[in-house]
Amino acid sequence: MRMYDLLEKKKNGGILTKEEIDFMIQGYTHGDIPDYQMSAMTMAICFQGMNPQETGDLTLAMRDSGDTLDLSGIRGIKVDKHSTGGVGDKTSLTLAPLVSSVGVKVAKMSGRGLGHTGGTIDKLESIPGFSTELTMDGFIRQVDTIGMAIMGQTADLAPADKKLYALRDVTATVDQMALIASSIMSKKLAAGADAIVLDVKCGSGAFMKDRKGADALAEAMVSIGRHAGKQVWAYITDMDQPLGNAVGNAIEVREAIETLKGQGPEDFRKLVLTLGSRMCIFAGVAKDFDSAYALLSEQLHSGKALEQMARFVEAQGGDPSYVLDEKKLKIAANVMPLTAKKDGVVSAIACAEVGMASLALGGGRETKADTIDPEVGILLHKKVGDAVRKGDVLAEIYYNDDRKGEEGLKRLEAAYRIGEAAPEKRPIILGEVKG
Amino acid sequence: MRMYDLLEKKKNGGILTKEEIDFMIQGYTHGDIPDYQMSAMTMAICFQGMNPQETGDLTLAMRDSGDTLDLSGIRGIKVDKHSTGGVGDKTSLTLAPLVSSVGVKVAKMSGRGLGHTGGTIDKLESIPGFSTELTMDGFIRQVDTIGMAIMGQTADLAPADKKLYALRDVTATVDQMALIASSIMSKKLAAGADAIVLDVKCGSGAFMKDRKGADALAEAMVSIGRHAGKQVWAYITDMDQPLGNAVGNAIEVREAIETLKGQGPEDFRKLVLTLGSRMCIFAGVAKDFDSAYALLSEQLHSGKALEQMARFVEAQGGDPSYVLDEKKLKIAANVMPLTAKKDGVVSAIACAEVGMASLALGGGRETKADTIDPEVGILLHKKVGDAVRKGDVLAEIYYNDDRKGEEGLKRLEAAYRIGEAAPEKRPIILGEVKG
Repeated sequence: MRMYDLLEKKKNGGILTKEEIDFMIQGYTHGDIPDYQMSAMTMAICFQGMNPQETGDLTLAMRDSGDTLDLSGIRGIKVDKHSTGGVGDKTSLTLAPLVSSVGVKVAKMSGRGLGHTGGTIDKLESIPGFSTELTMDGFIRQVDTIGMAIMGQTADLAPADKKLYALRDVTATVDQMALIASSIMSKKLAAGADAIVLDVKCGSGAFMKDRKGADALAEAMVSIGRHAGKQVWAYITDMDQPLGNAVGNAIEVREAIETLKGQGPEDFRKLVLTLGSRMCIFAGVAKDFDSAYALLSEQLHSGKALEQMARFVEAQGGDPSYVLDEKKLKIAANVMPLTAKKDGVVSAIACAEVGMASLALGGGRETKADTIDPEVGILLHKKVGDAVRKGDVLAEIYYNDDRKGEEGLKRLEAAYRIGEAAPEKRPIILGEVKG
Repeated sequence: MRMYDLLEKKKNGGILTKEEIDFMIQGYTHGDIPDYQMSAMTMAICFQGMNPQETGDLTLAMRDSGDTLDLSGIRGIKVDKHSTGGVGDKTSLTLAPLVSSVGVKVAKMSGRGLGHTGGTIDKLESIPGFSTELTMDGFIRQVDTIGMAIMGQTADLAPADKKLYALRDVTATVDQMALIASSIMSKKLAAGADAIVLDVKCGSGAFMKDRKGADALAEAMVSIGRHAGKQVWAYITDMDQPLGNAVGNAIEVREAIETLKGQGPEDFRKLVLTLGSRMCIFAGVAKDFDSAYALLSEQLHSGKALEQMARFVEAQGGDPSYVLDEKKLKIAANVMPLTAKKDGVVSAIACAEVGMASLALGGGRETKADTIDPEVGILLHKKVGDAVRKGDVLAEIYYNDDRKGEEGLKRLEAAYRIGEAAPEKRPIILGEVKG
C-alpha cells in the first residue's frame, strides 16, 4: 500500500477503506508517512469529506495509536462527558460530583491546555492541597470506592490525533467536520468510558458559530460512537454569551459550588441537570429523563451533591472546608466595575472579548510556559436580555495587577452591547442528537 | 504575511495576489515555508484552480527563483521550442539545424532526464566526439556565429519548480493544469529565448490523453507567455502512436538526419516543418506561414539543413562524417522482427508499450544511475492505418543482450493491435493556439 495512491483516491472523491485508514494513521504516527503527504490528505479531505464509515474508522485508528485506559477495575458503568469548549464553562466541576453522588462512575483524565481560563485541573487547584497526581491504581480505586476522580494526564492517549491536530493547525485544515469529530472522539474513546455525553457548544463563543455546524458535529460524533459500539448522546447548547456568571478559576469554582448547593445561575444549573440526567440514564441509575432530572435536582437541594464534592476533594488531598464554604476560596481583592453608558437592554456579550479579558487579567495561558493567576476573574451581573439603566454595574473585574486590570476592563467593555429592545431569547439547551 | 492565511484563502476559493505568490515561492525555495504547507497548497489548488493572472505570477516567481540566462550577446532573435514529450520524439535534432540554417537563433540548454529513451543530449552523443560541455561564453559565441548550440544544463534554472515538482510528484498533485503549465513555462522563460514554440502532445502516449486537456494546457502556456511579454505559439500534435518510425538513440539520430536530407517519415517531417515555420515567423526570417514552410522545405531538399547539422556537430567536437553518412552511426547488430499474426489493419500502436520496449532494451533510464545503450532501438515498419498480411514484419528490434531483446519483443508485441478496418486517420497537427 502506498500513501500516494490513497491521496490520489481521496482527491478523486474515493472512499478510503478501513485497511487504508489504518495504514495511513499507523504510518503517520510512526513517521513512515511524512507531514507533507498527510497535509495534502487533510486538504483533500476538506474538499471531498469522509463518509460516516471512514470517519469512524479514522477515529478508531487514532484511538488505537497509543494507550487506551482500562477501567474494568471500576464496578458499575463509567460515563464520561465532553464539552467542545466555551467561556465560563465550569460544567465538569459541578456535574461530576452531582452524578457520582447517585452512582454514576466518573473517571476523568484531564490535561492543561491553552485557553482564556485554566482547565478543570487548574480550577480545582484553587482549593488548597488539591492534587491530580494520582497513580493509575489509585485513580481506579478512588472511582471504584467514592465514585469519581480527576487525574492529570499521564497516559499517551491518541498520539496520532495530537500529531495530526498540530499539522492541521498550521495548514488551515482544522475546520473539517469529520476531522474535528474524529479528533475529539479518538481521545474520548481512548479514555475508556462505557458511555459519553457530549456538550456541543453553539454560538459566537463556540467553535461552531451556527446551528447547522453544531448539529453536523453532534451527529458526526454520535455516529462515531455507534461505530465504536459505545453509547453516545449529544446536546447542542448555547454559547452565544458566557455560561453562568463567573469567568476565571477560583471564581468559577465558587460558582460551581454554589450550584451544587442548589443556587447558582439558572442557565448553568439547567445545563448541568440536563447533561447529568442523560449520564444517569446511561449508567442505569434512572429509567427516564424526567425521573433523572428530578433525582439530580433533589441531590442539589438536599446537599448530597455538595457532600460528594467535599468527599472527592478530600480524597485528592484538598481541604473540604473550602467546598462547604466556597467564600474561603481566595479571589483578588481589587475590584473594578464595568458600568452601562446608557439605558437599554443587553443585546450581546461577545464571548471572545470576555475570554480575552480573562486572559489579559492573567487567568489563562497563551503559551505552555504561562502561569495562571487563580484569583483573577470576571463576574457578570447583567446577561443578554437584561434591562439596564445608565450607570448600572454590568460586570465586575477581579484583578491583582493594575495594568492588567485596565486591559481586562477595556476588553470587557468591548464585549457588552446595549441595544433598544431585548433580542430573541436563546434557551441554554438548543437541541440534541440521540444516540 | 503568513502562509497559513494564503492556505485559508485558496482553500476558500480566493485569488492569490502577485505579492502573495512571490512570498510563497521565495519562502518555499529558501526553506522558510515547509513542505507540509506547500503540499496542502498544491492540493487546494487542485480543487480551486488558479486563474490566468495567478498562473502567470506563479510562473514568473518560479522563473526568478534561480538563474536566468542572458542571451543578449547573441545577435538576432532567439527562438526556443518545447515538447511535452512522447515516444520517438527526435524533433529537436532536426528542427534546430533546419531553422538555424535560415537564420533563426537556437540556444538550447538541455538536461538528462529519466525516460524510455535518452534525451536530446544522449541521442547526440551517439555521434563520436560530440560534447555538450560548453562554457557559457562558448555557448553564446557559437549560437551567435553558426546559429545554434546545445549545452548541458549547468545553470540552476527555476529551482523552485524543481522543488515543487518533486513535492507534487509524491502528493498526487501533478495533474493540475495551472501547475503543469507554470512548471514548463518557468524553465523555458528562465532559458532566455525571445519567443517559444510549444509542441503539446495529445493522445495515448502523451501526458495529455485527450484533446480537451491538450487544448487547455496549450492555452494556459500561451497565456503565460502573454503574461511574461514573450511571443508564444502552441501546436497540439498527435501522440496516439509513436512519432516517425525510429525509437531509441542512435537510431533516432539516423532518422533525424534522413529527414534533414528531405527523406524520413512523413508525419515527422510535417511536424518539423510546421514548428519550424512558426519559429521562422517569430524570428522575422519569413513573413507568413506558407512562405516559411516553402523556405524550410527547400532547405531540406537543397542539403542546406544537413550542412548546418554537420557544422553544428563539428563545432561541438563531433565527427561530421556521421552526419553526411548517417549509416555510420552504430546500431546493434542483432535484429529480431515482430510479425503480424493475422491479416488486417494496424488499428493502434500503444506508445506506452513501445516506450517500455525501448526501456527494456536498455535505451532509456529508469533511475539517474542507469547507463544508456545508444545502439539499441526499435524501427516501426507498419503504422496505424497500414494494411498487413499474416507474417508481415510490423517492426524490428535492435538489441545487444538476448534476454533484453526477448523482453523488448514481448513489450512491442503488446503494443500492436491488428483490427479489421482502418481507424479514423489522425493528422499529425491536430490544432494550434495562437500567441
